[in-house]
Amino acid sequence: MPDPALLSINQLTTFEQWSLDQAIDGYARHGVPAIAVWREKLHEMGVAQAARKLKDAGMAVSGLCVCRVPVTTDAAVRREGLDDNRRQIDEAAAIGARCLVAVPVGMVDAAGMTIEDARARGLEAMAELLPHARGAGVVLGLEPLHPMMCATRSVLSSLEQANDWYEALGGGPELGITLDVYHVWWDPNLAREMRRAKGRIAVFHINDWLPDTSDTRVDRGMMGDGVIDIPSIRRMVEETGYTGHNEVEILSARTWWKRDPDEVVRIIKERYQTAV
Amino acid sequence: MPDPALLSINQLTTFEQWSLDQAIDGYARHGVPAIAVWREKLHEMGVAQAARKLKDAGMAVSGLCVCRVPVTTDAAVRREGLDDNRRQIDEAAAIGARCLVAVPVGMVDAAGMTIEDARARGLEAMAELLPHARGAGVVLGLEPLHPMMCATRSVLSSLEQANDWYEALGGGPELGITLDVYHVWWDPNLAREMRRAKGRIAVFHINDWLPDTSDTRVDRGMMGDGVIDIPSIRRMVEETGYTGHNEVEILSARTWWKRDPDEVVRIIKERYQTAV
Repeated sequence: MPDPALLSINQLTTFEQWSLDQAIDGYARHGVPAIAVWREKLHEMGVAQAARKLKDAGMAVSGLCVCRVPVTTDAAVRREGLDDNRRQIDEAAAIGARCLVAVPVGMVDAAGMTIEDARARGLEAMAELLPHARGAGVVLGLEPLHPMMCATRSVLSSLEQANDWYEALGGGPELGITLDVYHVWWDPNLAREMRRAKGRIAVFHINDWLPDTSDTRVDRGMMGDGVIDIPSIRRMVEETGYTGHNEVEILSARTWWKRDPDEVVRIIKERYQTAV
Repeated sequence: MPDPALLSINQLTTFEQWSLDQAIDGYARHGVPAIAVWREKLHEMGVAQAARKLKDAGMAVSGLCVCRVPVTTDAAVRREGLDDNRRQIDEAAAIGARCLVAVPVGMVDAAGMTIEDARARGLEAMAELLPHARGAGVVLGLEPLHPMMCATRSVLSSLEQANDWYEALGGGPELGITLDVYHVWWDPNLAREMRRAKGRIAVFHINDWLPDTSDTRVDRGMMGDGVIDIPSIRRMVEETGYTGHNEVEILSARTWWKRDPDEVVRIIKERYQTAV
C-alpha cells in the first residue's frame, strides 16, 4: 500500500464539478494532503488568491498542468508560445508547485512539418525554457503522452523518448519526467526505460485503462477498474528513487465527472489503499 | 507515385456496403487488381466459392484478416484458439492469400495475467502455429497494432516488438510482418526498426490518422486527409525490399462506410496517385 501522506488529486478529476476554490476545500475536507492544479481553473480563481488559499489550507501542490511547448517554425507563434510558457513557469513558482507538467504540442499544431522536425523543434523550445525554470526554481516535468495523442496533444510519445530528451537537455534540477500509468502501461520497453529514469521522475500520475474504452481523450478509469498493473509500475517508479506524490488524474466524461465529487474523493481514497 | 498494379483494397474499407462477392465484382469493375479478405465475409460466402470467384476474376489476394492468436494460460481455450488459427491458415491457403495477418489478442483476453506473461504466451502460441503455416505454404504476417488497442485487440504494440518476435521465432519463409501506417506513424523508433525489418514485410497497409479523431476503433481516414507522411513510410517499406501490394484499409463508421462504395473506390484510386 502506498503512503497515505503521498496521495494527491489532480483537479481534472473533479473538473466538471468543482472550481479550484471548491477543490481545495473539498480535498482538504477528506484529508487529502495535496492537489495538482489546472491552469484554466487557476486563472479563474486568480494566482495570488489561489496561492494564499493553498498555503492557508496547508495543501501541497504536486503539479501545475500543462505547459504546452510550441513545435512550430513560425517565429511569431513560437515566441508567443514561449512567452506564455514562461508566464506559466512563474505561476507554478507562485503556487509552490513541485513541478510544471510540460509537453511539446501535437502534429495538428505543426502544419507542414514532418514529425521528426516537430520533435526537433520541440526539444529546442524546451532548451530555451530551462534557464527561466532554473531562475524560478521550478521543475519542468516532461510528460510522454500516449501515442494516440500524437496528432492532437503531444509528439512526445514514450518514456524512451522522454529519457532521450532529458539527456539531450543535460538534465539538471529544473528538469524531470512526468510519468502517467495511462500513457505508458502498454510499452514493451517500460521496465528498461524506468531503470534508465533513475532520479528523473518529477511526478507520478495514476488512473486506469478501461477495457471497454473507445475514446482517446476523456474516458480514463478509476484505479482498479481497468487493465493496468498499477502496483508494478508504482514499484518501478519508487525504484528510481522517487519519493513524491501519487497523483490521481482521471478525465472521465462518462462516469466520474458526473458523480458527486465528495463520493469521487471517497472512492479514490479507498482505491488508493486497494489498487495502487 | 506507387505502382498502380500494386493497389489492393482491404474489404473492411467497404465493410458496411458490400459482401465479399460484391467487393470482388466492385473492385474488379474499377480495375483494382487485388483485395484483402475479412474472414467473417469469407465464411458468409463460403471458402470454396470465394476461391473460385477470386481466381475467375484474376484478382490477387494480398491478405486474409485476421488470425487472433491466443495468449491465455487456460489450456482448453488455448487449444481451441490454436485449432481455429490452423483452420484459418488452411482458408488462407485455399484462397491464395499472400499472407494471413496475425495478432496475439489483447489484455481483455488475458484475465489475471500480467502484460509480460500475455506477451510471452502469445509468442509461444505463434511458435506452435508456424509448422502448420509452413506446411500450408502460408505466410503469417505479425501485425503490431497501435498501443491504444493493447487492451482490446493485441499486446503486440510496436514494430520493434514485432522485430523481436520475428527474431525469437527464427524467421523463415512462413513468417513476416504486416506494417500499417496507422499503427506505427507516431513511433520515434520507426526508421531504425524499418531498417531492421529488411526482407520481413509481408504486407503494407495504408490509410490516414485524422486530426480530429477521438475514436480508437473505426475512425480511420482516407490517405491525404490526415497527419501521416505516407510517402515517407512507403519509401522505408520499399527499402526493406518489399515489392508487394499497397493495401488500403480504412475502418470508418462516420464517413467511408456511409458513402456509395463505387465512389469510395474511385476516391481511393485518386488518392493512391496523389497521397501515397
